[in-house]
Amino acid sequence: MNKYDIYRHQGLGGRSGIGNKCALVLVDFVNGFVDFDQLGGPHIEAAANQTVALLAHFRQHQLPVVHTRVVFEADGANTNIFALRVPPLQKLTEHAPGSQIVPQLQPAPGEWVIRKQSASAFFETGLAGWLLQRGVDTAVITGCTTSGCVRASVVDAMQHNLRTLVISDCVGDRAMEPHEANLFDMQQKYADVMSRDEFITQHQALVARS
Amino acid sequence: MNKYDIYRHQGLGGRSGIGNKCALVLVDFVNGFVDFDQLGGPHIEAAANQTVALLAHFRQHQLPVVHTRVVFEADGANTNIFALRVPPLQKLTEHAPGSQIVPQLQPAPGEWVIRKQSASAFFETGLAGWLLQRGVDTAVITGCTTSGCVRASVVDAMQHNLRTLVISDCVGDRAMEPHEANLFDMQQKYADVMSRDEFITQHQALVARS
Amino acid sequence: MNKYDIYRHQGLGGRSGIGNKCALVLVDFVNGFVDFDQLGGPHIEAAANQTVALLAHFRQHQLPVVHTRVVFEADGANTNIFALRVPPLQKLTEHAPGSQIVPQLQPAPGEWVIRKQSASAFFETGLAGWLLQRGVDTAVITGCTTSGCVRASVVDAMQHNLRTLVISDCVGDRAMEPHEANLFDMQQKYADVMSRDEFITQHQALVARS
Amino acid sequence: MNKYDIYRHQGLGGRSGIGNKCALVLVDFVNGFVDFDQLGGPHIEAAANQTVALLAHFRQHQLPVVHTRVVFEADGANTNIFALRVPPLQKLTEHAPGSQIVPQLQPAPGEWVIRKQSASAFFETGLAGWLLQRGVDTAVITGCTTSGCVRASVVDAMQHNLRTLVISDCVGDRAMEPHEANLFDMQQKYADVMSRDEFITQHQALVARS
Repeated sequence: MNKYDIYRHQGLGGRSGIGNKCALVLVDFVNGFVDFDQLGGPHIEAAANQTVALLAHFRQHQLPVVHTRVVFEADGANTNIFALRVPPLQKLTEHAPGSQIVPQLQPAPGEWVIRKQSASAFFETGLAGWLLQRGVDTAVITGCTTSGCVRASVVDAMQHNLRTLVISDCVGDRAMEPHEANLFDMQQKYADVMSRDEFITQHQALVARS
Repeated sequence: MNKYDIYRHQGLGGRSGIGNKCALVLVDFVNGFVDFDQLGGPHIEAAANQTVALLAHFRQHQLPVVHTRVVFEADGANTNIFALRVPPLQKLTEHAPGSQIVPQLQPAPGEWVIRKQSASAFFETGLAGWLLQRGVDTAVITGCTTSGCVRASVVDAMQHNLRTLVISDCVGDRAMEPHEANLFDMQQKYADVMSRDEFITQHQALVARS
Repeated sequence: MNKYDIYRHQGLGGRSGIGNKCALVLVDFVNGFVDFDQLGGPHIEAAANQTVALLAHFRQHQLPVVHTRVVFEADGANTNIFALRVPPLQKLTEHAPGSQIVPQLQPAPGEWVIRKQSASAFFETGLAGWLLQRGVDTAVITGCTTSGCVRASVVDAMQHNLRTLVISDCVGDRAMEPHEANLFDMQQKYADVMSRDEFITQHQALVARS
Repeated sequence: MNKYDIYRHQGLGGRSGIGNKCALVLVDFVNGFVDFDQLGGPHIEAAANQTVALLAHFRQHQLPVVHTRVVFEADGANTNIFALRVPPLQKLTEHAPGSQIVPQLQPAPGEWVIRKQSASAFFETGLAGWLLQRGVDTAVITGCTTSGCVRASVVDAMQHNLRTLVISDCVGDRAMEPHEANLFDMQQKYADVMSRDEFITQHQALVARS
């Protein structure tokens, strides 16, 4: 039996669906993660480019948008276990070029830019409460890396009881094998995985109906 | 470049190491997860059997041990998004055979048995504070599934700033491909991956030295 | 200047208001807290009696209801700093009469009964996510003690970005001075304080309008 | 029966004690809270002055020190329910004079300065994990206001299973009645309350003994 058969046999692979109000979460789309010599690569740059139209869609519908950046204190005051295991993270300080959001996805006023030090966009950042305040029930996750901070954010989004969607062509990774493996895991257990255009089409249909 | 080369080039794949005090976390070693017709299979049963001697090691050294079970209310009062996506989880109620810990790993008095409803053993369970109270700085993670609740627990253990270890032959999955893929992700980013016997040998050496 | 003048001078004492969907939180209305020889007294029993009609109101409007009980493991496995400082808490085990919800407020099927070990109903219990899943934006807090678990729950409800209300005659304490002092603090900083009948009247007017 | 008798009768008023490793938490000692026309007053300035020698003590013993500031985004991106209820909080932006730490308690390199938006220094800030990483088991709380962010931080410190101490002459409030009422609540339920000099004497004795 292959993995698909096993998961189907045990009742996994369900759907979350799009709820009443979506928010867009852009995880760590910063310069350091589109640079192969830092922490990312061209697959992530392609994902960032693909996300431009999705961000425009959310802005047009005046839906909440949140960006995350990895930012550590330059004096080491909050260097944590994650940054000790992955030392290049320590270079992502407030003003380092590597920790600035990529030019094509610059935050607009009122979009919240979270400084985070962990994998998940939700871990000790207040994001869940920010979404609750805005009546959001559906988190649309983009960013990088698929097998790292995206996966961690998706698991937490679902754990906070949000319907969770991953936009497959708006998430990127430094290597393709973990990218694919994590899309499989997320689809089977935590989130609906769909392309940007599938999402926009489905969302527009829902908006038109309401 | 293969994935190993890419990760090495970017400075991932570090080590956490064993700290001053370890705790053993047994994630969801319950009957329903050793049963192929529920949520698991024989690979998980093998991992449970392998864990027996590890549990004995922790008890002998009088180190903290915590077990988790998935337990939902029978009247649906706390059915969450996870249980809606994975309906068989809803059957894991307080007295269901599937939600009882496997016979070979029965909790001893004083070992905490956490009832959880999410993927991570740390998510809204109080486990981080329980470990802090006991002076633990190192979490040793076992259980199932590797690609599900183990992975989620490992990420959270690291996010809470614990040194985190995954015992490769004491974690199991319903399918081998996700098992392997997730061991890779965890090793590269979040945790040291080692076999049971490697851990016991290293730990005994550290204890002898102190 | 008295405290009211100082708070007004500095811009405190605002209003939260009732939002789109309320949930009722009954904090620790258990036998041990209506008993003067355990952890409570007659003022709490009066608050429980007063809450009966409020609970009926929520049920009639089919709004979410959550109860909390303090429950510690009988073998001491999760005795925490709180229970070490306040030893009578340790007696509130699963089947102890003192930890059962008072007869006049028995939970109905589908109402969630949270077992908690800390002061706040939100601390590591999953309550915030449970409310998010149900689209709740307003927490209506009752229970005991005003100066203890009610206060801690109110602060956390607001921190999770819920509009928060305290029903002044549905919260009780073991002593009147802390009861009054904490109602002042909560009103000035965290929550709207109103009587049961004020709440029901305001809520009915809002429901009629929508 | 007065409140002291009632609390004694019911077994409250225990002790936490000083553990193996203390950290100093300075809650919101910023310019805006020593200014009567913003959010504080002279009682808080006196507490800040009193804290100078305590901070020196922690630095001398090379123990962890953490400062908090209230900082909101200038564009309103993270204005929360707390800031909507207490509008002057919204003026505490990154570069506002009111949100800068008071001159006498300037952070030293390596001391972590947390930007927070809620009452508790622990709420969604990562402070608990930061303390766990440093092996801290005892939180020594100072700052302002006693009835606001200090109280909220103390409750959370205990909920995270830290032994918790409040230094009575190093915490201050805008009004005396809530200051006293909250010291009573904290002493009875959550934390040991002692003066700065009592703490230093006890701590030095413990250090000498170890």
